[in-house]
Amino acid sequence: MSIEQRHIDSAFDEDLDRLLGQLMTMGGLVESSIRDSSEALFLKDIELVDQTIRSDARIDAIEEEIQLAAVNLIALRQPRASDLRMVMAAMRISSILERVGDCSKNTAKRTTAILQSPLPGSAFSALERLARATQVLVKDSLDAFIQTDEHKAGDVIRRDHEIDQMHNSIFRQYLALMEQNPKVTTPLMHLLFIAKNFERIGDHATGIAEQSIYLKTGSLPDGERKKDDSTAFLTGPATPAENGIRKD
Amino acid sequence: MSIEQRHIDSAFDEDLDRLLGQLMTMGGLVESSIRDSSEALFLKDIELVDQTIRSDARIDAIEEEIQLAAVNLIALRQPRASDLRMVMAAMRISSILERVGDCSKNTAKRTTAILQSPLPGSAFSALERLARATQVLVKDSLDAFIQTDEHKAGDVIRRDHEIDQMHNSIFRQYLALMEQNPKVTTPLMHLLFIAKNFERIGDHATGIAEQSIYLKTGSLPDGERKKDDSTAFLTGPATPAENGIRKD
Repeated sequence: MSIEQRHIDSAFDEDLDRLLGQLMTMGGLVESSIRDSSEALFLKDIELVDQTIRSDARIDAIEEEIQLAAVNLIALRQPRASDLRMVMAAMRISSILERVGDCSKNTAKRTTAILQSPLPGSAFSALERLARATQVLVKDSLDAFIQTDEHKAGDVIRRDHEIDQMHNSIFRQYLALMEQNPKVTTPLMHLLFIAKNFERIGDHATGIAEQSIYLKTGSLPDGERKKDDSTAFLTGPATPAENGIRKD
Repeated sequence: MSIEQRHIDSAFDEDLDRLLGQLMTMGGLVESSIRDSSEALFLKDIELVDQTIRSDARIDAIEEEIQLAAVNLIALRQPRASDLRMVMAAMRISSILERVGDCSKNTAKRTTAILQSPLPGSAFSALERLARATQVLVKDSLDAFIQTDEHKAGDVIRRDHEIDQMHNSIFRQYLALMEQNPKVTTPLMHLLFIAKNFERIGDHATGIAEQSIYLKTGSLPDGERKKDDSTAFLTGPATPAENGIRKD
């Protein structure tokens, strides 16, 4: 039985339903913050920069509300087993979503600096794909949770690996562009940190997806959490041939 | 009355005491991970790289234990008011410490790449001071919590601003070095991300300190949380005169 289909037949269920409602509201705000921060950058829209930064405060506040509501629910209803797991999962997901909001806010702040600098047009296309992919991934990870669909959750974790590869390739592309033209070092540095923000959002989607698996099994998936990106081990940029950089 | 002096006179206090013991064990592990990751980098010690990465798994596991113990404590003892705040603060701090462990692990991974590349000697001295400052800050933030000393907590938050300034100056120094010598772009990029890890650890220390204030007042300090660094707005590197870069 998915959470959506759950019949409300107890005080606990009523409280839980309210909690999950808050969590989905928060999820919607966070999805918007990813979209707004991306559009601010790609459409050079300074209004959306401000909106992203402002909405992060709202995201932080709703996370506080969710944590408090969850703790009150645990103290009052003393849920056990799968009921308790559900409440804990909601707490963890709200904490993860808060961190996604931080990533969007950081992207927005860096966009302010980037919009003042000329950048090679080739720097944006792959990043735009990365941004879109992470936004969809966060949405799908929340759907997997609310539908308690562990297959969908597994698919999110698989797609996060693709996002890591996209980020890897962007990282190498930017290093190559910097070496070719040191004058664009500063704006490209900001773009590198922005790419890293999106890569991290992908990790957070995996973290959310893992909670769906935790709900079914009572434990997290085996193996080391894939939290980090392989660019941490990179010792040099790609050659132009490797990633099709145009010198424009 | 500080937490240390608290007389154990109920089942709740006994459980809480055990929980805080776990939290302090976790704090010790995390302080070690900051020190190990720093020494790995500055002493070029690959053994310490491995040790930092391994210890992060232990840190993640103890965070899970703390979250579960806290939730069980809330369900079983139904603490209210300041007792409940204490348990929630312990949960939040363990979640923050887990993120500090992630920063150390990321620094260790990047160190592997850096140790293979020649770097200007001037790149390390300010970073070493930053690393040491953040390690002490995390220790002091945990002391402020366990002693419920809000003045010490306020001091941590103040010193985090100094850490932000140190990071700001390093960021500009590295950008200038990259522009001067594009061949060191890749290793300096890793150093930039490492500096950012330390800056972020400072933010986490502030997050821990805020919990001491939350314990006293029931709410977080006023004003926007200083989670981000001002380098996000930087539009260019420092001039050599500004930060005393030697061209070596």
